[in-house]
Amino acid sequence: MADAEQIEQVTKQVQDVVLDEHGKPLSKSALKKLEKEKLKKERAEKDALARKAQEEAKAANTPDCSKGLYGKKPMNRSEDRPGLKHEKLPDITASRAGDKVWIRARVQTCRPTGGNMCFFVLRQNSSTIQGLVVCDKETISKQMVKFAQGISTESIVLLEGTVAVPKEPVTGCTVQDAEIAISQLFVTGEAQGRLPFNLADASRPETDFEKEDAQFSKVSLHTRLENRVFDLRTITNQSIFRIQAGVCKLFREFLEKKGFMEIHTPKIIGAATEGGANVFKVKYFDTDAFLAQSPQFYKQMVVCGDFERVFEIGSVFRAENSFTHRHMTEFIGLDLEMAFEEHYHEILDVFDELFVHIFTGLETEYAADLEVVHRQYPFEKFQFLPKTLRLEYKDAVALLRENGVEMGDYDDLSTEIEKKLGQLVKAKYHTDFFMLDKFPLEVRPFYTMPDPKNPKYSNSYDFFMRGEEILSGAQRIHDPDFLIERAKAHDVDPESIKNYVDAFRMGAPPHGGGGIGLERVIFFYLNLGNIRRVSLFPRDPNRLTP
Amino acid sequence: MADAEQIEQVTKQVQDVVLDEHGKPLSKSALKKLEKEKLKKERAEKDALARKAQEEAKAANTPDCSKGLYGKKPMNRSEDRPGLKHEKLPDITASRAGDKVWIRARVQTCRPTGGNMCFFVLRQNSSTIQGLVVCDKETISKQMVKFAQGISTESIVLLEGTVAVPKEPVTGCTVQDAEIAISQLFVTGEAQGRLPFNLADASRPETDFEKEDAQFSKVSLHTRLENRVFDLRTITNQSIFRIQAGVCKLFREFLEKKGFMEIHTPKIIGAATEGGANVFKVKYFDTDAFLAQSPQFYKQMVVCGDFERVFEIGSVFRAENSFTHRHMTEFIGLDLEMAFEEHYHEILDVFDELFVHIFTGLETEYAADLEVVHRQYPFEKFQFLPKTLRLEYKDAVALLRENGVEMGDYDDLSTEIEKKLGQLVKAKYHTDFFMLDKFPLEVRPFYTMPDPKNPKYSNSYDFFMRGEEILSGAQRIHDPDFLIERAKAHDVDPESIKNYVDAFRMGAPPHGGGGIGLERVIFFYLNLGNIRRVSLFPRDPNRLTP
Repeated sequence: MADAEQIEQVTKQVQDVVLDEHGKPLSKSALKKLEKEKLKKERAEKDALARKAQEEAKAANTPDCSKGLYGKKPMNRSEDRPGLKHEKLPDITASRAGDKVWIRARVQTCRPTGGNMCFFVLRQNSSTIQGLVVCDKETISKQMVKFAQGISTESIVLLEGTVAVPKEPVTGCTVQDAEIAISQLFVTGEAQGRLPFNLADASRPETDFEKEDAQFSKVSLHTRLENRVFDLRTITNQSIFRIQAGVCKLFREFLEKKGFMEIHTPKIIGAATEGGANVFKVKYFDTDAFLAQSPQFYKQMVVCGDFERVFEIGSVFRAENSFTHRHMTEFIGLDLEMAFEEHYHEILDVFDELFVHIFTGLETEYAADLEVVHRQYPFEKFQFLPKTLRLEYKDAVALLRENGVEMGDYDDLSTEIEKKLGQLVKAKYHTDFFMLDKFPLEVRPFYTMPDPKNPKYSNSYDFFMRGEEILSGAQRIHDPDFLIERAKAHDVDPESIKNYVDAFRMGAPPHGGGGIGLERVIFFYLNLGNIRRVSLFPRDPNRLTP
Repeated sequence: MADAEQIEQVTKQVQDVVLDEHGKPLSKSALKKLEKEKLKKERAEKDALARKAQEEAKAANTPDCSKGLYGKKPMNRSEDRPGLKHEKLPDITASRAGDKVWIRARVQTCRPTGGNMCFFVLRQNSSTIQGLVVCDKETISKQMVKFAQGISTESIVLLEGTVAVPKEPVTGCTVQDAEIAISQLFVTGEAQGRLPFNLADASRPETDFEKEDAQFSKVSLHTRLENRVFDLRTITNQSIFRIQAGVCKLFREFLEKKGFMEIHTPKIIGAATEGGANVFKVKYFDTDAFLAQSPQFYKQMVVCGDFERVFEIGSVFRAENSFTHRHMTEFIGLDLEMAFEEHYHEILDVFDELFVHIFTGLETEYAADLEVVHRQYPFEKFQFLPKTLRLEYKDAVALLRENGVEMGDYDDLSTEIEKKLGQLVKAKYHTDFFMLDKFPLEVRPFYTMPDPKNPKYSNSYDFFMRGEEILSGAQRIHDPDFLIERAKAHDVDPESIKNYVDAFRMGAPPHGGGGIGLERVIFFYLNLGNIRRVSLFPRDPNRLTP
């Protein structure tokens, strides 16, 4: 709840309606320009104020009763270690009224009130508190107040103050029952120059932009990504990446309990084993190498090396020249591979429990972060079943046909049809997550085990969240001779996959697995519209920086 | 202890002394050749036996009382799922005598005894049990015994049997108080052709090869790596990679408790930011990109994005054309970065506790695995202090000089001098792990914060295990103008690191961190002689496969 209130506070900022000379709201670009000028002016004014204060003090030779209690600190080079305890904002409450505390925080807003006061909203990650400097002419001088008024937004300050209980709750901050009466104030990390955009705009609920009287600029995804370090400071992004770390944690903790071992396979590989089309080439000393498009072959080899259940969290590279909402050239794969005893559905059983564990864990352990994201990017609650729906491909085709989609029995699914299927499944089974089993053999890679009962199908599956694919997997062929036969049928040169095939010659258990796209899971769970929002520094054919 | 006994059993195999025609022990290569021939002969004999059995049965038209109870199963294509419970070997004990059980395991050894019996050592990962097939002419036919005798080593079998208590403990297996009287026996994954080397030799204690009467072949690291999938099956390798997974787990669990968040930074980067020399170039659509030599710049940027404490476990790439025992072109970095409050020694405090947590966790949670590795590769117990020794560079130089090493105050340490220092520190402080703080500024990268008290030194550190470097880190410069000044002093073009420098313009906290080489930690902890032993599929300038 605290987080939600903070968003509200952020949202309230910069809501003044700006009109042009004809009394009409300004265009976006004009607004932006205006805002730029405004900021520039403000900065100049603040600088002037600070200079003036110093000059005044000097000129008048006024004694400064706050001397040494404020100022800009030189760069911290670890000169000393006085051992001051720095407080975390969530630990400050009304019960501590009267306590002297030291706090390091960012200046989220700095609001001068006349010449004698300055209000701050101070931020640490997702928490905020109100701070104030009031001139009392005994310990807090006019000069100190002027210095405070000149501090630029997003600067980091170190301050000493006394916890006080405000007359009314500070609704604009996450800490509402306490504020800080500042007695010492130092800038330790100054924000220089113009900020790339308004952080309040970058945190504003999407729905605000649809309002008729919306007068603020929407920060485009491009602008965000160009200024990603700054963009990451919005409370929404703080939450998104905490959720991402959470998915990894939930993934690992479940699999470790189930006897899976973490592995790390090479990303630089000698041959473009999985097909040369979408693979990045690396100059490797005097020869060429490639970036792994998935850890699959190596995972399988490790299983044949008697590590029967393995998982990996690692980088995956795809040289796809595409600019869709769900493709990146580099992402994180959550991979697992396991030997099974009788039937590849044992793998689906593991995945089933795994995803239920992740979805449940998000709802329970990350509820506050989900709420924060929801406020900016409203999404329908993600629905899932305690036992995941498993749909056979042929039944999915039937369902699609019943609903007017024309397609052949063994046609692959287009993105559009996948989405349609997601809607139909949601309507019929009330779930945003399901497994699609028994894909047509022809649309799957050569190493996929054919269905023993119908040679047109295979023991392979995709998983979907909100109608979009987040995992692909299969029972793999573990018989080397059959594998070669299937490779040839797919025009794959057996010589090019020799190491892989040889791994099965010394006795291989039946096995299979799958790879989950980490960013996709979060992207679709939160329904964020673009996968780039859930990557710290996304990569696509046009984006290599920052 | 069970594991230790298994090694003993493995060790006992293949110990016959082979002499040449002059009564002298054969040379290594002659031995190898002999062994090859022997294996070939054995295989041929086994095949002949199996064929003969079939022919005999056919010819005599002898009814086979075991019909349907043995044979080679067709490839598992997930035809059905009968739901048989497969037992794990450690769960089988004398207390279960009389129980009928199903087991899937590898045939580690297959020893025919006359025409009526066959003994197996069956293996699952690091566990082994004895199994036997005995002809009783009622349910177990001569034909079935002959089939059993023909099964090739390392094949996977699925068997039904009755738990029995052997007259004497089976000292050669990890399960000693129980054995399996086999009643059904199926080969489900046949090992084809010749195995690349003898698994017993590959598991043999290093010390065995120093014995005067040693008559077996040592499996070279090259041979192991060329046949890595097979090599991974040795119990020593099973333990090494469990230990590796353990280090990652201990690293994460400690940092999560300390408020660190897991991140994933891009591995494909737009500029060779950390110096172009050792960087791999990638063809990125119509332009060039590079593989990240470390996540450092991105970690720092994330810290500036207000994620104040972050860690990453990910691939790191170094195009170093070197073939030392401790370099690979690709390895796993355990990285962390944190904002600190007053002094960069706060980072050392975190690292200190972290390493003590890892070393202690290995000793307690991975004791059995350590024992297994120790049997094959004996190592001195790794010594560490409850509070890690922190040595200043100048004091290390003094210590070296006292002991006859000639070097200047600000010279870098060569690998050789590092090792010497490790020995001196061990002798004086009784620890294999220490931190070396305050490196000369000149030998560190441009972004390193200079020491405020002596401009010749810096706020940077390396950590050492058994006298070899496993971590490098520092307080980073967080002031953009000073960073540019230092970059210029190092001939780094500020334009080439613009994104990085800009991250500090919007207010940056003092911060620092370091990167641990995962493989190095395990390599030096276990003192394994070559880092390639602790990488599943190591990469060096000559090795891109498997």
